Amino acid sequence: MNKRMIAYVQGLLMVCEAGLLLLPLITALIYGESTVSAFIFTICLLCVVGLVLIKFKPKDKTIYARDGLVIVALGWIILSLFGALPYYISGEIPRFIDALFETVSGLTTTGASILSEVESMSKSLLFWRNFTNWIGGMGVLVFVMAVLPLSGGGGDLHLMKAEAPGPSVGKLVPKSNKTARILYLIYFALTAACAIFLLIGGLPLFDSITTAFGTAGTGGFSIYNDSFGSASPYCRTVIAVFMALFGINFNIYFLLLIKRFKDAFKSEELWTYIGIIIASVTVITINISNQFSSIGEAFHHASFQVSSLMTSTGFSSTDFNQWPELSRTILIMMMCVGACAGSTGGGFKVSRLILLVKYAAKELRSVSHPRSVKVLKFEGRRVKDETIRGTTAYFIVYVAIFCLSLILISFDKGDTTTNITSVISLLNNMGPNMGDRIVDSASGIISGGPLTNFGPFSNLSKIVFILDMLFGRLEFFPLIVLLTPSRSLRQKLSNRKRL
Amino acid sequence: MNKRMIAYVQGLLMVCEAGLLLLPLITALIYGESTVSAFIFTICLLCVVGLVLIKFKPKDKTIYARDGLVIVALGWIILSLFGALPYYISGEIPRFIDALFETVSGLTTTGASILSEVESMSKSLLFWRNFTNWIGGMGVLVFVMAVLPLSGGGGDLHLMKAEAPGPSVGKLVPKSNKTARILYLIYFALTAACAIFLLIGGLPLFDSITTAFGTAGTGGFSIYNDSFGSASPYCRTVIAVFMALFGINFNIYFLLLIKRFKDAFKSEELWTYIGIIIASVTVITINISNQFSSIGEAFHHASFQVSSLMTSTGFSSTDFNQWPELSRTILIMMMCVGACAGSTGGGFKVSRLILLVKYAAKELRSVSHPRSVKVLKFEGRRVKDETIRGTTAYFIVYVAIFCLSLILISFDKGDTTTNITSVISLLNNMGPNMGDRIVDSASGIISGGPLTNFGPFSNLSKIVFILDMLFGRLEFFPLIVLLTPSRSLRQKLSNRKRL
Repeated sequence: MNKRMIAYVQGLLMVCEAGLLLLPLITALIYGESTVSAFIFTICLLCVVGLVLIKFKPKDKTIYARDGLVIVALGWIILSLFGALPYYISGEIPRFIDALFETVSGLTTTGASILSEVESMSKSLLFWRNFTNWIGGMGVLVFVMAVLPLSGGGGDLHLMKAEAPGPSVGKLVPKSNKTARILYLIYFALTAACAIFLLIGGLPLFDSITTAFGTAGTGGFSIYNDSFGSASPYCRTVIAVFMALFGINFNIYFLLLIKRFKDAFKSEELWTYIGIIIASVTVITINISNQFSSIGEAFHHASFQVSSLMTSTGFSSTDFNQWPELSRTILIMMMCVGACAGSTGGGFKVSRLILLVKYAAKELRSVSHPRSVKVLKFEGRRVKDETIRGTTAYFIVYVAIFCLSLILISFDKGDTTTNITSVISLLNNMGPNMGDRIVDSASGIISGGPLTNFGPFSNLSKIVFILDMLFGRLEFFPLIVLLTPSRSLRQKLSNRKRL
Repeated sequence: MNKRMIAYVQGLLMVCEAGLLLLPLITALIYGESTVSAFIFTICLLCVVGLVLIKFKPKDKTIYARDGLVIVALGWIILSLFGALPYYISGEIPRFIDALFETVSGLTTTGASILSEVESMSKSLLFWRNFTNWIGGMGVLVFVMAVLPLSGGGGDLHLMKAEAPGPSVGKLVPKSNKTARILYLIYFALTAACAIFLLIGGLPLFDSITTAFGTAGTGGFSIYNDSFGSASPYCRTVIAVFMALFGINFNIYFLLLIKRFKDAFKSEELWTYIGIIIASVTVITINISNQFSSIGEAFHHASFQVSSLMTSTGFSSTDFNQWPELSRTILIMMMCVGACAGSTGGGFKVSRLILLVKYAAKELRSVSHPRSVKVLKFEGRRVKDETIRGTTAYFIVYVAIFCLSLILISFDKGDTTTNITSVISLLNNMGPNMGDRIVDSASGIISGGPLTNFGPFSNLSKIVFILDMLFGRLEFFPLIVLLTPSRSLRQKLSNRKRL
């Protein structure tokens, strides 16, 4: 393991975060808010620690596969810890665990909150909150890579593989850092388009930008207390369309950019994604039509909610916890499936679902026709055995972590539905949960439904949730590698025992 | 496909069922009940149809892998349809779908019921109800094989593989039908021991035998309205111990019989099974201790419930739906895991769990140490790639059928917890569900908890449940093969289209 390189990249990341924090600092200065000092303190701290780490420049810049995983896991944890400081120091979120929950929720694009209402928060912190959604959407290391080349050669690809969501990551162009730059360019352009459409709809500049951040990262943080319950139908339509767009694999936008339309539109994942959205919107519209005054309104809310939950954004236009059980069940399942690989959306990913279904079908076939030999194909290409093994292992780990989390939070005061939907929601970087009750023993407040906050949960549950969000965003492997002692460490420990 | 052989075995099965129905018929004669005519009619019908099918004796007695699957799937469906007749004809269960649900629930050893109370039922039908638990436990085709050799050679093994639970089926002795006979002998001896222990506890003969049937098949049908809520602590202890015993792989009893103690006690699955039971009982005892007058009583109920749900029996000694969320969550997970392979218990099976965990651990290792090559071992032997692929595919199909069932029953009136626990319960041949409400729109009755019956569900839900129980018992593959059109049929259809 190249420890000096790991420390060096952490230093770069911290300086980078300091740079990103300048934007909310400027916001604080514009609005003349008292949060200025909290931002300045955090920025200074990040710069000092970051520059110290950078100073020990490693001679060997190689990044091995394992290093890539450790860099990403460690990087996300450090960024979250420092990113929580502005909330905590300013006193707007008085408990550090809550501030950390909010930051992890932002960076992992989950969008779950411990706040019961957000409108009283200062503008600069609201900006930072939604900005974390945007940063986390495409990935922090991808950002660093877009700005400066880290190690060159295969090292950067290891980092990208560790951070980017989906079963297999391809480079768009031969060089990793050029790929990162193209991805961020597409990301930036789409976000700007979203903000402009919202501006046209009459939203103020601040609201447009922050909402575009939450939408682009498919994060789900909203600057309104009721998410988008009282927004105009035009704005909701804009958001619904852009959520769905950000859930598409960015490779497809790249193919469109270089005018390879044929390649772009033959993507199996894209069509499955669109198919699931159309089918779900249809069923839910019919199912909820009697709860709304017109079928058009039902369609409007159904498509907003499907787009929001399929892409793991988590915005809500209405209390869908009150919808019939059929719609609720479909929405819970959409939460699990998630968006396309290579998008900013979370969840299990459509491509993994396709792979698993094809794999199971092939195995079933071989039970009744033992001699049939069929090759597994995806997106027109033969799927490597390695990818299949990785995907099935991922699925097993996914279910295992789900079960473990469920047991740990069952010590808390939620009921079964609340617990199950909370874990699903956070593990898939979704945001809202559905359930009947979370009773806050201190205040006696009973809360539930998609507009729920996670404030009433205990500290233990919050730690579990924070880990779940990180597991979900980083797709398990980096964190697991970080948490497993390395072979040399194990060797040392066992040697010590023998002495 | 050897169609004549398939029909021939169906005929044998039907005559066999007619023979088995003689026992409840005798019970009806002893108690002088009016159900006599219903039993006689069913027996005659079975004999006529069965003998007609047997008459076309096939020249070629080969059973191919696919035939084995079709024979088992078809056999279970036919036995269930005819087995439901006594309930229906006697009028004690007035609707056929309910009678079918009850029979499938019995044969698949699920133990879920559509009856709100059972004590008013006639003795002979109660006998038949619990007897189906016993028959289904070890398997109907295994019974036929024990009585007469079907095809000799590999054919019998195909049948056994298709019917017996678990990822891999081994023969105890070189001949399949001898293996079947040994299995039934162990099964019979253990059942008799259970009945004798209950007799010693003061239970009447009828109650002892029927309860032993329900316990041995890990079925869960009880002849009391409150399951075992008001039984004596002695009887409950006997049942708890025997449930756990019937959840153990029968191979181990065989090894004990032939005095290979060392081989018997080095089984990984056995120790994992015992470990899970001990750990769960400990945690639940502590968790529920304040709900009972003494820690001993808490331990008594905890161990009864763990033994009941781990083995997929589904008996209850108390309303565990009122237990704290932690205990409920653990119990729900035990429902999924289930008993050992090669036992009468249902569920996903401990051995499959071990295989998946080992497989995922191996794959995780290969992410951080790409060059490490580790061989997957289970029970001291190297696991075949085929077994791993089969197990992961099984897992995927399991989750897929769970999701599909959940969507279909969400049309009904249960809440999320009720729906989820119902599907888990039936898919794992468990019996009870946990939830807050199933509202019967007709009577307005709200029911819930482990003593719940499935009566209030709609016909659509009941059909889904019946299929789930069969899927769970036959472990998906036979039914899926039966439901998929064969290649030649598909060919014919596509030829017709072309014309």
